[in-house]
Amino acid sequence: MSYLELKRQAFEANMELNARGLVIYTWGNVSQLDRDAGVMAIKPSGVPYEELKPEHMVIVDMDNKIVEGSMRPSSDTKTHTHLYRHFDDIGGVTHTHSTYATAWAQAQTPIPCYGTTHADFVYGEVPCTAAMTDAQVERDYEEETGVQITDRFANLKPLEVPMVIVAGHAPFTWGVNAEKAVYHAVVLEELAKMASLTLEVNQRAPLLSQAVLNKHYNRKHGKNAYYGQK
Amino acid sequence: MSYLELKRQAFEANMELNARGLVIYTWGNVSQLDRDAGVMAIKPSGVPYEELKPEHMVIVDMDNKIVEGSMRPSSDTKTHTHLYRHFDDIGGVTHTHSTYATAWAQAQTPIPCYGTTHADFVYGEVPCTAAMTDAQVERDYEEETGVQITDRFANLKPLEVPMVIVAGHAPFTWGVNAEKAVYHAVVLEELAKMASLTLEVNQRAPLLSQAVLNKHYNRKHGKNAYYGQK
Amino acid sequence: MSYLELKRQAFEANMELNARGLVIYTWGNVSQLDRDAGVMAIKPSGVPYEELKPEHMVIVDMDNKIVEGSMRPSSDTKTHTHLYRHFDDIGGVTHTHSTYATAWAQAQTPIPCYGTTHADFVYGEVPCTAAMTDAQVERDYEEETGVQITDRFANLKPLEVPMVIVAGHAPFTWGVNAEKAVYHAVVLEELAKMASLTLEVNQRAPLLSQAVLNKHYNRKHGKNAYYGQK
Amino acid sequence: MSYLELKRQAFEANMELNARGLVIYTWGNVSQLDRDAGVMAIKPSGVPYEELKPEHMVIVDMDNKIVEGSMRPSSDTKTHTHLYRHFDDIGGVTHTHSTYATAWAQAQTPIPCYGTTHADFVYGEVPCTAAMTDAQVERDYEEETGVQITDRFANLKPLEVPMVIVAGHAPFTWGVNAEKAVYHAVVLEELAKMASLTLEVNQRAPLLSQAVLNKHYNRKHGKNAYYGQK
Repeated sequence: MSYLELKRQAFEANMELNARGLVIYTWGNVSQLDRDAGVMAIKPSGVPYEELKPEHMVIVDMDNKIVEGSMRPSSDTKTHTHLYRHFDDIGGVTHTHSTYATAWAQAQTPIPCYGTTHADFVYGEVPCTAAMTDAQVERDYEEETGVQITDRFANLKPLEVPMVIVAGHAPFTWGVNAEKAVYHAVVLEELAKMASLTLEVNQRAPLLSQAVLNKHYNRKHGKNAYYGQK
Repeated sequence: MSYLELKRQAFEANMELNARGLVIYTWGNVSQLDRDAGVMAIKPSGVPYEELKPEHMVIVDMDNKIVEGSMRPSSDTKTHTHLYRHFDDIGGVTHTHSTYATAWAQAQTPIPCYGTTHADFVYGEVPCTAAMTDAQVERDYEEETGVQITDRFANLKPLEVPMVIVAGHAPFTWGVNAEKAVYHAVVLEELAKMASLTLEVNQRAPLLSQAVLNKHYNRKHGKNAYYGQK
Repeated sequence: MSYLELKRQAFEANMELNARGLVIYTWGNVSQLDRDAGVMAIKPSGVPYEELKPEHMVIVDMDNKIVEGSMRPSSDTKTHTHLYRHFDDIGGVTHTHSTYATAWAQAQTPIPCYGTTHADFVYGEVPCTAAMTDAQVERDYEEETGVQITDRFANLKPLEVPMVIVAGHAPFTWGVNAEKAVYHAVVLEELAKMASLTLEVNQRAPLLSQAVLNKHYNRKHGKNAYYGQK
Repeated sequence: MSYLELKRQAFEANMELNARGLVIYTWGNVSQLDRDAGVMAIKPSGVPYEELKPEHMVIVDMDNKIVEGSMRPSSDTKTHTHLYRHFDDIGGVTHTHSTYATAWAQAQTPIPCYGTTHADFVYGEVPCTAAMTDAQVERDYEEETGVQITDRFANLKPLEVPMVIVAGHAPFTWGVNAEKAVYHAVVLEELAKMASLTLEVNQRAPLLSQAVLNKHYNRKHGKNAYYGQK
C-alpha cells in the first residue's frame, strides 16, 4: 500500500470517528497499519477534526520512528505500535474517550455480556485492564498503556474480543483495518450504554447464556456464518 | 398488492426506522405482509440503510422460501414468518436493537404500565419472553425466537399488545401494516426510556390504575374511540 | 384579537413545542386564549406536526363548544378550558408527554427545588397532583384532569408556579400567553432532567435554601426584578 | 485591545457556548477581559442567542461600572469582576447552567477525578463551594457568588483548576481568555456526565491514582508538556 493510500485510510477512519459523535475536540485517534511495510499512518497530536487533512497523517514505523510527515504523531503512538507488535491479525486501532465506554473504564469494571447485541461482536465480556501501577507510570507511560492491554489479553484472541477498556482511562478498539476498528468503537459505545441502562433496570441482570452467546457470535463470524450477503 | 408495491412499503418502513434513530448500521429490519398472497417483503441481510433501495427487498413466502429477489433476506426472516403465521391480524413486523428497549430485554424484565403514555398504545405491561433454553438454541434459532414470543402471547391479543421484548435479546413490534409496526417501535423505545427514568426517581413507582388504563386505551382504540379525526 | 391572529399564535406555539423536541408524532397540544372574547384556539386532535397549518386550529369557547373550525379539537380540550376558567391570569396552556417530566409524573413525585435554575422560574417545588380516583375516571375524564390540577392549586398562585405534573400522566404548563406556556414546558423538561440527575449523584441532595429561592425568583419576577433589559 | 476587538471576542465565545449545546434560551454568559485596560466585554442580560450581535456586548470596568454600551450587562456581572480581581492569571469567564454540571452543583458534591479525561484538564477534583448563607444572600448576591468561589479557592491555583461548581447553583469556568473558558465549560459538562455514569456502574469507583493524575496533567500542561504540536 502506498503511503498516500495509507494516509487516506487513516484520515477517513479518523473523520468517521468524529462523524459518529465519539469524540469532541481532539479527544481520539485512529491508525491504519501496513504490516508488510512495517509502518502505520496515525493522526497528528492535538489537531481538531475540523482542520484535519489526509496529508497531516504521520507515517510511523513499529519502533515509533517518524518515517514521513512534518507533524508530531498522536501522543498515544506507542500504545498503537505496541498493539500492532503483539496482536498479529489486526490492521487498525482506535482510541477514544467516548462517554459511556469511558464511564465503564472509570468504574474499572468489565462490561458483562447481557445480550445478543453484545454477542454479535464480542465473544464474552469486554475486558477491563488492571489499573496502571505507579512503577509503570514512571517507566514509559504510553508504552505501558499497551502493556496493560496485552497483559489482559494473555488468554484472549484479539479478533474475537476487538476492544478493551483501560482502567481509569478509556477504551481502545481494533480490527482487521482502521474502518473496522472505528466500527468497533461505535459498537462498544452502544454496548456500554445498553449495559449501563440494563443495570439501572435490574442490578442483578443475568448474563446471556453461553449457548446463545455461541450461536450469535458464530452466526456472524466463523466458518458457518450466515449473516449478511455472500 | 403487487410485489412492487409490497417492496415499496417495506422499503419505506425500513427507512423510517432508520430516520427515527432506532437503528445504527444494519441493526434492524421491517417486513410488510400480503396475507392474501401469502408473502412478505423484507429487508435483505446486512445491507446498510444508506445503500438500501426498494428493489433490494426480498419477497419470501410463509415457509421462508424466496419467491423473488437476488439477495439473502434478513437473518431474522423465520421469526417474522412465525409471527405472521400465529398472529392473524398483523400485517407488519419490526425488529430493532433500540437502546432503552434492549436494556429492558437484557434486564429480562417486562415494562410496567406506569402512565397514560403507555396506556395509549399498550393494554397492560410490555411483556418479556422467557429466556431461550439451550435446547431451543440447538434447534432452529430464529424460528425459536418466534416461539419465545408466541409462547408468551398464549393469553394476549397481539393488536392490544403490539410489542414484546425478547429476554437477553431485543424488541419486536408489529401492527396492521409495516408503517404501524414502525410507529410501535418508536413508541416502545420512548416507553422504555420513560419507565427507566421513572424507576430512577422512585424505585417503588405505583402502577397506573386499571380504570385509567382502560380509559386511555379505549379513548384511542375500540369502538367508542374519540381521539383524532373521524 | 381576531380569530386569525388567535389561530396564528396557537399554531406558532404548537410548532415551537415540536421544534424544541418536546413531542413526537401528535403527543402534545397548546392553546391560546382570548379572555375578552371567551374563546381559545387549540390544536386539532391527532394531526401530526409536519402537516399542521394555522387554519387547522379550532376555536372553542369556555363551555367546550366549537365556535369555528372543521376539525375536532384536541381530546384534552376540556382540561384546557377548565384551567382557563379557574386560573384568572393565564392566557396559554400546553400539554406534553416530554420524557423527563413524564417520568416524574409516573413516579408520582413532585420535583423538589434543588437549585437556582428551578428558582428562576418556579416559586417552590413543581407540584404533583393526587392520582385520579376510579370515580373521577367514570365521570368526565378530561374535565377531571383539570380538577386534579385545580385541587392541587388550592393554595398556589398559577403564575408563580406555572406548571404541574399530573400523577400517572404527564405535565401541563401555562403562562400569560401560549408562547410563555411553551417556554415553561421547555423549562420544566430541563428542571425535571436536572433533578433526576441530581438524585443520581446524591440521593439526599439538600433543598435550595428559602433565602436563595426568594432571591432568584424575585430577581426575575416581582416588582424589583432586575434581570433582562428594561 | 480595542473595545471593538474585545467585544468581538466576547461575542464569539458566547456564540460558541450556544453552539456547543451548553445553554438554552439566555441561560449563560461569557466575558473577555482586557487586564491592562481594566475592562471586560460581557453579554447583555436576558438577550437570546439568536438575536445576539457583537455590538450588544457591554464594556464594564472592575468596579462594575458600564464604560460603553446601551444595554444592561449580564445580571452575573459582579461575579465575573470578582473573579478577575482575585484570580490574576485569567482572561475569560463563563457561567452556564449546563445539565450535568448543574446536577452536581445541585447535589452539592465535588466531582471526583475518576479518570484521565478529567486529569487532562483539571488537577484534582472539580471543587464545589459551600452553600450560600442567608446573611450572604442579604448582602450583595452576585458579589457573594464570587466570594463563594474565591473562598473555596483559598488553596487552589485557578489555572490548574479552571472550573468550579457553586452549591445549589451551577458552574463557572475560566481560562487565559474567553475562548479557553468556553473550552473548559464544554470539558466540565463532559466530565460531569462521565462521573455521573461512572457512579451508576460502580458506586465505589476508585479515584485515579495520584501518579497517573500527575502524568496526564503534566503531559498537557507544565514545562515538559508533549501533547499537541510545538
